[in-house]
Amino acid sequence: MYDVFQTDRLIDTWLAEDIGYCDLTAQVMIEAHETGAFYMNAREDLIVAGIDVAARVFKRYDATLEVTVRVSDGDHLKKGAVMLDVRGNARSVLTAERTALNIVQRMSGIANLTAEYVKAVAGTRARLIDTRKTTPGLRMLEKHAVTCGGGLNHRLGLDNGVMIKDNHIAVCGGIAKAVQRARRQLPVLTKLEVECDRLEQVQEALEAGVDVIMLDNMSVEEMSKAVELVGGRTKLEASGGINLATIGDIAKTGVDYISTSKINQASLCVDIGLDEAE
Amino acid sequence: MYDVFQTDRLIDTWLAEDIGYCDLTAQVMIEAHETGAFYMNAREDLIVAGIDVAARVFKRYDATLEVTVRVSDGDHLKKGAVMLDVRGNARSVLTAERTALNIVQRMSGIANLTAEYVKAVAGTRARLIDTRKTTPGLRMLEKHAVTCGGGLNHRLGLDNGVMIKDNHIAVCGGIAKAVQRARRQLPVLTKLEVECDRLEQVQEALEAGVDVIMLDNMSVEEMSKAVELVGGRTKLEASGGINLATIGDIAKTGVDYISTSKINQASLCVDIGLDEAE
Amino acid sequence: MYDVFQTDRLIDTWLAEDIGYCDLTAQVMIEAHETGAFYMNAREDLIVAGIDVAARVFKRYDATLEVTVRVSDGDHLKKGAVMLDVRGNARSVLTAERTALNIVQRMSGIANLTAEYVKAVAGTRARLIDTRKTTPGLRMLEKHAVTCGGGLNHRLGLDNGVMIKDNHIAVCGGIAKAVQRARRQLPVLTKLEVECDRLEQVQEALEAGVDVIMLDNMSVEEMSKAVELVGGRTKLEASGGINLATIGDIAKTGVDYISTSKINQASLCVDIGLDEAE
Amino acid sequence: MYDVFQTDRLIDTWLAEDIGYCDLTAQVMIEAHETGAFYMNAREDLIVAGIDVAARVFKRYDATLEVTVRVSDGDHLKKGAVMLDVRGNARSVLTAERTALNIVQRMSGIANLTAEYVKAVAGTRARLIDTRKTTPGLRMLEKHAVTCGGGLNHRLGLDNGVMIKDNHIAVCGGIAKAVQRARRQLPVLTKLEVECDRLEQVQEALEAGVDVIMLDNMSVEEMSKAVELVGGRTKLEASGGINLATIGDIAKTGVDYISTSKINQASLCVDIGLDEAE
Amino acid sequence: MYDVFQTDRLIDTWLAEDIGYCDLTAQVMIEAHETGAFYMNAREDLIVAGIDVAARVFKRYDATLEVTVRVSDGDHLKKGAVMLDVRGNARSVLTAERTALNIVQRMSGIANLTAEYVKAVAGTRARLIDTRKTTPGLRMLEKHAVTCGGGLNHRLGLDNGVMIKDNHIAVCGGIAKAVQRARRQLPVLTKLEVECDRLEQVQEALEAGVDVIMLDNMSVEEMSKAVELVGGRTKLEASGGINLATIGDIAKTGVDYISTSKINQASLCVDIGLDEAE
Amino acid sequence: MYDVFQTDRLIDTWLAEDIGYCDLTAQVMIEAHETGAFYMNAREDLIVAGIDVAARVFKRYDATLEVTVRVSDGDHLKKGAVMLDVRGNARSVLTAERTALNIVQRMSGIANLTAEYVKAVAGTRARLIDTRKTTPGLRMLEKHAVTCGGGLNHRLGLDNGVMIKDNHIAVCGGIAKAVQRARRQLPVLTKLEVECDRLEQVQEALEAGVDVIMLDNMSVEEMSKAVELVGGRTKLEASGGINLATIGDIAKTGVDYISTSKINQASLCVDIGLDEAE
Repeated sequence: MYDVFQTDRLIDTWLAEDIGYCDLTAQVMIEAHETGAFYMNAREDLIVAGIDVAARVFKRYDATLEVTVRVSDGDHLKKGAVMLDVRGNARSVLTAERTALNIVQRMSGIANLTAEYVKAVAGTRARLIDTRKTTPGLRMLEKHAVTCGGGLNHRLGLDNGVMIKDNHIAVCGGIAKAVQRARRQLPVLTKLEVECDRLEQVQEALEAGVDVIMLDNMSVEEMSKAVELVGGRTKLEASGGINLATIGDIAKTGVDYISTSKINQASLCVDIGLDEAE
Repeated sequence: MYDVFQTDRLIDTWLAEDIGYCDLTAQVMIEAHETGAFYMNAREDLIVAGIDVAARVFKRYDATLEVTVRVSDGDHLKKGAVMLDVRGNARSVLTAERTALNIVQRMSGIANLTAEYVKAVAGTRARLIDTRKTTPGLRMLEKHAVTCGGGLNHRLGLDNGVMIKDNHIAVCGGIAKAVQRARRQLPVLTKLEVECDRLEQVQEALEAGVDVIMLDNMSVEEMSKAVELVGGRTKLEASGGINLATIGDIAKTGVDYISTSKINQASLCVDIGLDEAE
Repeated sequence: MYDVFQTDRLIDTWLAEDIGYCDLTAQVMIEAHETGAFYMNAREDLIVAGIDVAARVFKRYDATLEVTVRVSDGDHLKKGAVMLDVRGNARSVLTAERTALNIVQRMSGIANLTAEYVKAVAGTRARLIDTRKTTPGLRMLEKHAVTCGGGLNHRLGLDNGVMIKDNHIAVCGGIAKAVQRARRQLPVLTKLEVECDRLEQVQEALEAGVDVIMLDNMSVEEMSKAVELVGGRTKLEASGGINLATIGDIAKTGVDYISTSKINQASLCVDIGLDEAE
Repeated sequence: MYDVFQTDRLIDTWLAEDIGYCDLTAQVMIEAHETGAFYMNAREDLIVAGIDVAARVFKRYDATLEVTVRVSDGDHLKKGAVMLDVRGNARSVLTAERTALNIVQRMSGIANLTAEYVKAVAGTRARLIDTRKTTPGLRMLEKHAVTCGGGLNHRLGLDNGVMIKDNHIAVCGGIAKAVQRARRQLPVLTKLEVECDRLEQVQEALEAGVDVIMLDNMSVEEMSKAVELVGGRTKLEASGGINLATIGDIAKTGVDYISTSKINQASLCVDIGLDEAE
Repeated sequence: MYDVFQTDRLIDTWLAEDIGYCDLTAQVMIEAHETGAFYMNAREDLIVAGIDVAARVFKRYDATLEVTVRVSDGDHLKKGAVMLDVRGNARSVLTAERTALNIVQRMSGIANLTAEYVKAVAGTRARLIDTRKTTPGLRMLEKHAVTCGGGLNHRLGLDNGVMIKDNHIAVCGGIAKAVQRARRQLPVLTKLEVECDRLEQVQEALEAGVDVIMLDNMSVEEMSKAVELVGGRTKLEASGGINLATIGDIAKTGVDYISTSKINQASLCVDIGLDEAE
Repeated sequence: MYDVFQTDRLIDTWLAEDIGYCDLTAQVMIEAHETGAFYMNAREDLIVAGIDVAARVFKRYDATLEVTVRVSDGDHLKKGAVMLDVRGNARSVLTAERTALNIVQRMSGIANLTAEYVKAVAGTRARLIDTRKTTPGLRMLEKHAVTCGGGLNHRLGLDNGVMIKDNHIAVCGGIAKAVQRARRQLPVLTKLEVECDRLEQVQEALEAGVDVIMLDNMSVEEMSKAVELVGGRTKLEASGGINLATIGDIAKTGVDYISTSKINQASLCVDIGLDEAE
């Protein structure tokens, strides 16, 4: 999920960044009216994310380019698969090429790593979710990439839901009072989550009627107890110290969500290239 | 190297991205005039990059915040090291926190991985260099991070130097003609690099008087021969298939530069946090 | 609740709009270095909203102006009350004056009308809430004004919560299926509301586990039945045909929220002026 | 009168405001390729203003939407009249819907109230004019709406004409000197208006050769005398305390213009909706 | 006359243009914390225009720089005169230097050429005025420069006054009808000018009551007759074929204004430099 | 060489500048649906630069206009030559006309003056090059105009190449050390130029291995010696005091480049107009 109108505005800033004054190579080595046909292809097995964004990069730079997208976000591709075709003015294609590739390589990398985490919780009720630890400027696109890999999004930004933490609770004199204070002022369609370090807090949060309880850096045993305690009356999110080695056991505790910044902060770009059609 | 004026404009877009309509949590849980003192600290051993950018994030959001930077870009820090202090309006600090952390975590991650590659070529004449395969929107900051890790930058964007490739050469009828065509039109302070796949091309490029010759996907043996052939008369860049396992042998061939997209596309964010001072 | 950083960017566009090429009157009639002291005052009884925004208008135009805010948003003022003082360069004050007044007049007008509606539901459990029917460009500031008058905000924008309507339900084959489809994809901290025209739908929505049920254009009797049916298990919002004559009876049905576009679309600007201090 | 190029830039900011990260409802409840046909219709009798702006909102968001405007700005419509049709991608229509409606509702509201004032001066030489008391960000569109209701515009912004006031006159030592000072510096195509509180000032202004004399908060008797005094040699504008009860008598004095902020600051949005075609 | 707030936004775009990714020379050759004192000085005799704009360039780039302006716009300087001092971070000064110089050199060049034209009409009632033939992006600053050289501005842009031309007149069926049509719709504070090629048109325009009559490409004799015909009842502007050889005779005809694009389109930048203080 | 994508963003700001609130004349004098055919023509002999930019001005304002470009940048035209046709909505053409003309007049003016300088060095090895002394906001377009007149560009901006000056050399302790310092940090594809006032410096720079040596304000004799000294081992640029009287002798010394700000700072706009087709 991302908005194409907002994305086009981002694309414009990326193009401006790479081009600067102008693409010297394209200007001096390619004739102004030369045309060509190019195809973007996977250079390793991968899950696609951002292929429509890459297509829009070419269109934003030069609306006369003909771009045909051959795959869909979320598709599992084999090395060599053709992802999109672009044909038209050769200078335009080459000037926009790097920007188009950079974004789809990064987004697909996030989708791939997400898919590994999602696979590790398969068969449990737990859904893998992301965090706000995304690359500055790419929030929605990275969150979209997470969904292409099978994950869900936590909140989109600071205006999407409220997170009550330790120090808020301390200041207000307990979870119940903190929640009450928040509800009195919050927009009606806002969910409220409370970070809990200990089981007593989970009990308190449950009674206060929060929408989600975050189990922050708890052991698997504590988490199991929290699940039992809550008994499905509210949602539970496991957070902290999640990795591919630990996530399976955590998922088995019965929590609803497991969040990790790893899928955004430790993903590698995948290899995707653009070649001229023979 | 990055420009602070241009960076401030980027920061503004990042803040707008994370905040959206407003930081609901800060608005409902923190009093408008509450103040606090916070410190940013390394949660693992790391090489710093972007600490001044993180500091500016706080200042751009709220110019009344007092920010003191405790370390310098390029410093090697131990886990637990304090990186900066920020004190003042608590709402402001918490609203800007995630954006400040996200950028310094990513930039430091790039510096760390770069340093590993740089270490792998230590003792040779080869300098590690980057590519244009950077995150859209973060070009200069990621390139700066590379230098914090001990690398050098290749070109900054499409207006910085010219890269002549196979198909350009084919169209022009040889490297000499391609170079001549480019020089006739290029700004005087522009360097020119040619991609060569084979030794014959290296010889041709050398005679054409290019500034840098890229040895593209050559074997170590071929590269050694290219170094011998050129004899220091122009710069040589090794490119393609570089990784930590192969880079040492490549460096020993005597090439001047080794470029890799890995330092930007396969770096992991490092762990850095913000805590309230006791 | 609104973000000052985002608001400053709005203010810049308003100033540019009113100034155009330059303030001809100020430039030709006032000496460049003339200074003055001015005060903004209520010219009728009113509830204040946006006084800090008005203050920022002066500061954005000329950071050397000294602005002192004398009242707080939400205050009930008597005609003649001084709202803020501004002193410094006279040209700057006069150039920014109209923009500062225009925004505080409009926001206070919304607060005033909201307060009338809020008064009409006093003594019931119903909270008055707004809609997305706001002036283009002023969303957050108008929503803030609603809270100054004692109302609550519904959702802030299209990325804040989901509203399921008739045709969505029809397409999905019932409320339960529509809700299920939404939950599968929605960010975790997103609330979900369903529009219901009939009591059967309310029952269905209740079972589907939505966060808020909108009772759309129902009669007071139907609403009472809905309240009874739901028995506090979820939130109920009355919507459609709300005005000062009808809202009292609706509030007595026991609904949680009553939403109306009137507070934004039928509010009148209040009279506020700027005078030079003697 | 408004410029479509400038308006498109405004529209972009409105869409960004309402959408935020993305339209969650449209994304989760509507298939990406679903299409639909919708029509915008008057839900009360009204005078249209801004129908082309509403149409452009849809086109800016998604250029593939087909929009047909059925009425013209200034038309008097009956409840139920179809104002425009829009067909194409259903997600796009629903995402842009609220923004399109919000602007045409507000602009038409201004046209309607203006028409009431215009009717009240019918049969006199007086033309109803507006002021700079408009909604920040909507200056030209609100001024255009005034003309749709039969009014005229006063100045568009601070760079359009000069208004000399009491304190300017005092500083310069009389109206003649103030006018002289202004004329020496003003762009040639700039008109000059002087605010007069008393008849002596009117005489002075007349002799100074100003383009318009504003009769500020004068009684009907004083205004009649001013009209007689001036004898058509310059334009006269009545200002201050104008409302539907007083405007008729003022118009009969023979003034050329009557200005009021009411048409912008006390107008109510009219009811206009978008429905799916059966 | 120009607005400093609007000018600051322009300055930001100029700085971004010259800097691009970053000022490589300043970054590699100057230590980050090095400071210096510099002064801007006239390298030929000149009339200053834009000195405050140049000062703001330094402040926009780095608000910590101390800038002292030593002269005023409109001053006649001798070669060697110090125009401003700037001290502080040396990198900042050198990065902003070229942009600051480029604007003040161009604006002063316009002031100088304007002064020559103004001198050529000295002793007549004619005022020299400019046109809309300015450098794209520099409208207000170039118009301000004209006033520094002693000229007046014609209209600032397309929203400042109306120019009725031949084809408008033809379409409307005469000047009277064209003027009537315009007046019916125009903002009240808008002046109206008509282009006349022949004396009959002057008569017609005079009767239609326009604010300014442009005598377009008339001979000196025709202009003299037009002056006589009008007898001071409206303003007359001579236009077309104005240069330093012809302007004296034209001025003697008694026209009120003489407009020329030359002062903007044929001005040369003056020589101004920045030197480090010893 | 300039980038059309970046240019379109500039064009948008120019149009906004000239239009302001709206084109009053076009709105009141031309019917909304009136169409027309217009052609742009040379009103003196000239070398064209910027004709495609002018064409884009019309298309940016109104994409429905049909614009046909009849000549190419660099063409030598005779007075009266048709440069482009534009047909479609008459209001749109007239609103955009002045902006389109202003840019092509200025760019062609630069091309023309450049051509005079280029002619003066004909038959020598010297190429005429420009500087960074361009109009703020028009850097790339003015540099493109220089190439249309037969010149070459020096560096495009501060991120394009490094210029080492006197004070840098002094601080570093000689040219060799300054160059070494720069090379250690500079992006690989960056050229390095050193300013030399004396022959000893030329020798030093030659040994340090710089890419270009600037001979700053040297006499013709000194330049000849420098050429001899260098013997083609690096590029030499003559700078300072260049004009049409001196450039011929300088060119004969054998330098590679001669740079002058005159072509940008002393060029006059050429006469180009837009007429309605009969």
